[in-house]
Amino acid sequence: MKSEKISELTTNRLSVYLRCLNDLAAAGEKTVSSDKLAKRFHLNSAQIRKDLANFGEFGVRGVGYTIETLCDHLTKILGLNKEHRVCIIGAGRLGTALADYHGFKKANFTVAALFDSDTKKIGKKVGGVVIFDIKNFASAVKRDKIEVAVIAVPAEFAQAVLERIVKAGIKAVMNFAPIPLKASCDVKLKTIDLTTSLESLSYFLAKPLGENNLGVKPKVKGRRK
Amino acid sequence: MKSEKISELTTNRLSVYLRCLNDLAAAGEKTVSSDKLAKRFHLNSAQIRKDLANFGEFGVRGVGYTIETLCDHLTKILGLNKEHRVCIIGAGRLGTALADYHGFKKANFTVAALFDSDTKKIGKKVGGVVIFDIKNFASAVKRDKIEVAVIAVPAEFAQAVLERIVKAGIKAVMNFAPIPLKASCDVKLKTIDLTTSLESLSYFLAKPLGENNLGVKPKVKGRRK
Repeated sequence: MKSEKISELTTNRLSVYLRCLNDLAAAGEKTVSSDKLAKRFHLNSAQIRKDLANFGEFGVRGVGYTIETLCDHLTKILGLNKEHRVCIIGAGRLGTALADYHGFKKANFTVAALFDSDTKKIGKKVGGVVIFDIKNFASAVKRDKIEVAVIAVPAEFAQAVLERIVKAGIKAVMNFAPIPLKASCDVKLKTIDLTTSLESLSYFLAKPLGENNLGVKPKVKGRRK
Repeated sequence: MKSEKISELTTNRLSVYLRCLNDLAAAGEKTVSSDKLAKRFHLNSAQIRKDLANFGEFGVRGVGYTIETLCDHLTKILGLNKEHRVCIIGAGRLGTALADYHGFKKANFTVAALFDSDTKKIGKKVGGVVIFDIKNFASAVKRDKIEVAVIAVPAEFAQAVLERIVKAGIKAVMNFAPIPLKASCDVKLKTIDLTTSLESLSYFLAKPLGENNLGVKPKVKGRRK
């Protein structure tokens, strides 16, 4: 396994392949070729073969991949065979929406705790998850064996919250605050910046007629206001 | 202006620069050099100069950038000087959290409507935004001059919803359903896939001790369970 050289773009694609394979398995399919998989889910078949080749020989010439076996391998490669316990900091609308987000369960992530500093919220439950006082963060993380933290606080508090998270020994962080955060390089920090995505849509809408996001004329003609 | 050759990674960085410059302006700063900007916000100064050079000469040697002027330019480049009207399809927890999301307002996006098929929800308001019947989607889009659609429905409905959106003439779409969607290339589709981000964190947690996300030994030593 050459896992030392695997980029995040590759693991992102492995995630997508796994989701597609799970869909096929749910539909009763047993095997699939990279070409079929690519065609069905709008992927790139050469890329699929290249990505999977990083981890071993999974395909059989003329048959393709055995879906169940490949699902098992991808699940293990992505560490999804093990439960990860998550906490969410910030019990506002976004934090509470995330506490209930189905995607966590699908990825074998269990939301074990919410944290907030608002005394009116502390002690309440959202979708079965208790909101704890952020003051007791470090001890709660230890008690609940939390490995992943999700930052869902306003931008101005995000860096201080990140420092608290890292101090508590958590190494994997997902940040929803629209601000660049700084973490030491042994901490995996994923920022989900909706503002940036919105502004990229705005840039697209602001551009002159006939250019798409790649700056080339669209192949399919369409109106643009 | 060479805007035809600007990649999405560049516009993403322009968004970040704008946010950082706004922070500095709010703190009363008037000018900033690319080096200072980079140091303060954990960015790359050569990248800042290169990105901005795509759009003209904004800096003065020995002085740096005039923050107000550069903010104005970036705002125009990103199309943020114009209001964009947004609708959200799916009035579940995520959709309603998004209806209230402060980042929309910051990017000059106004959430004009929510849509759902659940008759219990239709007619209700979330943060001042009315939930409309998805059946009346096309006419509501026209009436409310909606340019951007946000997909916040379960994965299995997402492709059908996208097709409805495109049919209604909308060209900019933000998708939160964890599934690859297919759109014609004159439609700008941004997928915010939380599951993929989670699985990339899971991959990080599953890896042997001492490797970080780039597959190299961390410079800052840390514990990992």
